[in-house]
Amino acid sequence: MIAKTPEPPYYAVIFSSVNTENAEDYSAMADRMVELASNQEGFLGIESARNELGITVSYWKDLESIKHWKENAEHSVAQARGRKDWYQSYKTRIAKVERDYAFDKI
Amino acid sequence: MIAKTPEPPYYAVIFSSVNTENAEDYSAMADRMVELASNQEGFLGIESARNELGITVSYWKDLESIKHWKENAEHSVAQARGRKDWYQSYKTRIAKVERDYAFDKI
Repeated sequence: MIAKTPEPPYYAVIFSSVNTENAEDYSAMADRMVELASNQEGFLGIESARNELGITVSYWKDLESIKHWKENAEHSVAQARGRKDWYQSYKTRIAKVERDYAFDKI
Repeated sequence: MIAKTPEPPYYAVIFSSVNTENAEDYSAMADRMVELASNQEGFLGIESARNELGITVSYWKDLESIKHWKENAEHSVAQARGRKDWYQSYKTRIAKVERDYAFDKI
């Protein structure tokens, strides 16, 4: 659930989106993208939640890994389909995680 | 919904949490914390979504603003109550947004 990322520094891609009402094929694509991302070089983890707004944060070793993931052929097809059918709007933010801290109830 | 943040660089606080089954007072506190954060110096916006995992990303002008928000008295009380009652586990990541891009369907 909460991604088990290594010690910082590493990178986060914060993807915030509002969907259209056309949800056809969306969750199958989303599941496939998680599977595909997980197999990319430099992938460190992913977290996702959705209400009216969806937030997916994927974690990466470095900017190079993010660039490769953005340009992955199957991912590029999904991005184009997303802009055509699924997303009303989105914002992608590339951020360098400098520090993190955790809490676990015992 | 999607925060209208300025041109990078700015900072993101990515707060990922799994709640306990004790939800008493939780949403009132969450609403109050959004209101309180919004009035802090350096606050740029906030995005939130929750299923089993909750993700809240708040955006800030600089590390100084984040430090002040973390140490805000009322926020500190809420954090302590959260660790006692509401959160099974959480992870907070402080990240510098280096780049962003947006899409809006016309």
